[in-house]
Amino acid sequence: MDIRSSALLTDLYQLTMLQAYVEQGMEEFAVFEFFVRRLPPKRGFFLAAGLEQVVEFLERLRFSEEELQWLAESGRFSRAFVDYCACLRFTGDLHAMPEGTVFFPDEPIVRVTAPLPEAQLIETRLINLLHYQTLIASKAARSVLAVQGQPLVDFGLRRSHGAEAGLLAARASYLAGFAGTATVLAGSLFGVPLYGTMAHSFVQAHLDETEAFAHFADAQPENIVLLIDTYDTETAAGKVVALAPRLKRKGLTIRGVRLDSGDLAVHAGKVRRILDEGGLPDVQIVVSGNLDEYALQALVAAGAPIDSFAVGTSMTTSADAPYLDCAYKLQEYAGRACRKRSEGKATWPGRKQVYRWYGADGRIAQDVVTVADDRQDGEALVQPVMEAGRRLAPSSPLADIRTKAAAELARLPESLRQLQDSPPVPVRISQALRDLAKSVDERG
Amino acid sequence: MDIRSSALLTDLYQLTMLQAYVEQGMEEFAVFEFFVRRLPPKRGFFLAAGLEQVVEFLERLRFSEEELQWLAESGRFSRAFVDYCACLRFTGDLHAMPEGTVFFPDEPIVRVTAPLPEAQLIETRLINLLHYQTLIASKAARSVLAVQGQPLVDFGLRRSHGAEAGLLAARASYLAGFAGTATVLAGSLFGVPLYGTMAHSFVQAHLDETEAFAHFADAQPENIVLLIDTYDTETAAGKVVALAPRLKRKGLTIRGVRLDSGDLAVHAGKVRRILDEGGLPDVQIVVSGNLDEYALQALVAAGAPIDSFAVGTSMTTSADAPYLDCAYKLQEYAGRACRKRSEGKATWPGRKQVYRWYGADGRIAQDVVTVADDRQDGEALVQPVMEAGRRLAPSSPLADIRTKAAAELARLPESLRQLQDSPPVPVRISQALRDLAKSVDERG
Repeated sequence: MDIRSSALLTDLYQLTMLQAYVEQGMEEFAVFEFFVRRLPPKRGFFLAAGLEQVVEFLERLRFSEEELQWLAESGRFSRAFVDYCACLRFTGDLHAMPEGTVFFPDEPIVRVTAPLPEAQLIETRLINLLHYQTLIASKAARSVLAVQGQPLVDFGLRRSHGAEAGLLAARASYLAGFAGTATVLAGSLFGVPLYGTMAHSFVQAHLDETEAFAHFADAQPENIVLLIDTYDTETAAGKVVALAPRLKRKGLTIRGVRLDSGDLAVHAGKVRRILDEGGLPDVQIVVSGNLDEYALQALVAAGAPIDSFAVGTSMTTSADAPYLDCAYKLQEYAGRACRKRSEGKATWPGRKQVYRWYGADGRIAQDVVTVADDRQDGEALVQPVMEAGRRLAPSSPLADIRTKAAAELARLPESLRQLQDSPPVPVRISQALRDLAKSVDERG
Repeated sequence: MDIRSSALLTDLYQLTMLQAYVEQGMEEFAVFEFFVRRLPPKRGFFLAAGLEQVVEFLERLRFSEEELQWLAESGRFSRAFVDYCACLRFTGDLHAMPEGTVFFPDEPIVRVTAPLPEAQLIETRLINLLHYQTLIASKAARSVLAVQGQPLVDFGLRRSHGAEAGLLAARASYLAGFAGTATVLAGSLFGVPLYGTMAHSFVQAHLDETEAFAHFADAQPENIVLLIDTYDTETAAGKVVALAPRLKRKGLTIRGVRLDSGDLAVHAGKVRRILDEGGLPDVQIVVSGNLDEYALQALVAAGAPIDSFAVGTSMTTSADAPYLDCAYKLQEYAGRACRKRSEGKATWPGRKQVYRWYGADGRIAQDVVTVADDRQDGEALVQPVMEAGRRLAPSSPLADIRTKAAAELARLPESLRQLQDSPPVPVRISQALRDLAKSVDERG
């Protein structure tokens, strides 16, 4: 079964609430919005991602025969409710910031307008999808900013949190500006460019390191990138120099070497010298091993002669901030705006829009969050995506989203692009929205 | 498609190495072991989990027609190699510590013995599965130790990293001692007990909080747990008291209330008093909201009148340590032990066994890691699981694994059970293993 589209991939309370809504006839239109409450420490912005998977989930939403049978046999639900579930589809509207949009706390990036049971049921998976890809795209963008144009590749599948995390991390990091991924399934499903070298086990399985390199070259003539740190990095670089002429006679050209341990800047410097002196100035140096945006910044600042970087666990788990404080909250029901007032978790009511103002330098200067039917200066970021359960336009090619993301990152204030602690971009709450909150609170 | 069993859910380099192995006829038996290099900060032990999913993955391993077609059309692989992939199955042996076993750094918890291409190909997904569930079981066990017997429920699907993470976090936390989960699919697939209450949106969608409670009670007569912090916690507790007699006349009994914000110890105290004075001493108090093992310890230490706890994001993302420094390394090929000597990443060579010694108090005193054919005193932890691609025994019921894990946690040294900084359990490397490493290094 495809767990990604299972209607049972949800919290039990969604189903129990649904039964109560249905029994009470509470099926009027509800408006929910997804937003992030605050920036993690040291972060200055978010990059929206995951919308495409949300739309696919909503388009396909239905209970299978087996799922309906499970509901019926669980003893928790009435026959009438199971029959209701059999017919349930998503028939609502979706508004959203396009994937690749930069955004800030308290800004709705997705708005769902649908009959209450539908809008409620989808909460868990919608958060699950938007949260993870936005988390990873926002993290990956920091590495992209750190390396200032050099290629980055996602090597993080193995320690990502399960199958879907690895797959979607490849998508989210590519969207954010990575050159590609090692995850083959992301190549076959999303068209993300694929990269790969060899593992230490490949070298170890051979009796001789040079022999391992030669075998790999024969098998992958178009992609000869040799891992040289299994035993001693500089010794192996010497073996590469010695091997190159032998390969050349067979018409094979070594494209690169990979370093995966030790002080990468120091090793890269020594290896570059060995390769250059050995007549291999075109052989590139790829590095990997516990890299995050700070390690990347340091390698770039040190002027280490590195041509590309592979980033793994720190990116696919967003290790320094492995979750976002996000929520999907009811903002309106049956035409009546509402908000939660729980301690420390109060939200702004009603359906909302975000307007973005740019400075004279073209950089993002300020956002204004206001009620959806208010008009403000600036660019309206929340756009219609689905109407009555159907997409309004075909999904954007991933390459186009990546181009958009690059343009968005280019418009960040310079201090945020430098990954420095810097004043946040101001997010202003409009007077119209404040007035609405006041009237909601006064109503009680 | 079920991405969980896709043969393309792997790193590109596994496929390119495979092609080289196959072309060179390097198909002799290889031994790989999975282990964790070090404990995350403040952690004292790991709890093994994920083996069942690894076995299922190995049993089902094969390239589908579509996957073979993708390989052929990618331009990266020879026709002969694609034909090899069409016939590829896992035909090897698997040894492992049973799920629910406590273990420590440098101890192999899984050993694969198989023809080199098979053992290599499975690396990425095997790590991906063992890493995540072991990460989560080890984290969840800390909450279990913190609450000293009170029920814990997993509420973490929404911010877990994708579909499989949420699903497997429910399994891993149940295995570690949680009472159950809110994730419905974990109930239907694994039989994990399900729990759930209501969301703030349910209360907000009603014009009146009491009316929301009454509707919920009608729809869920067996499971009336009311969320009381949407507006004002103590006011809502008063409404619960006022509502109870009305429900009682309909034969309905309120089982509990849930608090999700503010100072949970303070609110629980006040709410307990309101409920008791209102004649509802049997109504339980459930709390949730940013709980981790330290918050749980503090609530228990404060003597807060709380009956059960829901734990979410901090557990399903293992927020304070979102990954383990784990590896799956080649230890032997064609009867020849080997090891990687990369800086800071050297490993112990050969196929290994772990023996556990217990003290007079029945607690774990020391582990000894040695070569597999060495005999030592103590309990041998690594056991045969698969032979020639087949399970040696049916999979253990999850409830049995949970019972084993509880027994294992009971045998931890008391300081580790208290989550205190404490001396690690000693893991001794046997002389036989040291001798083997020396001979491997001398061989060059």
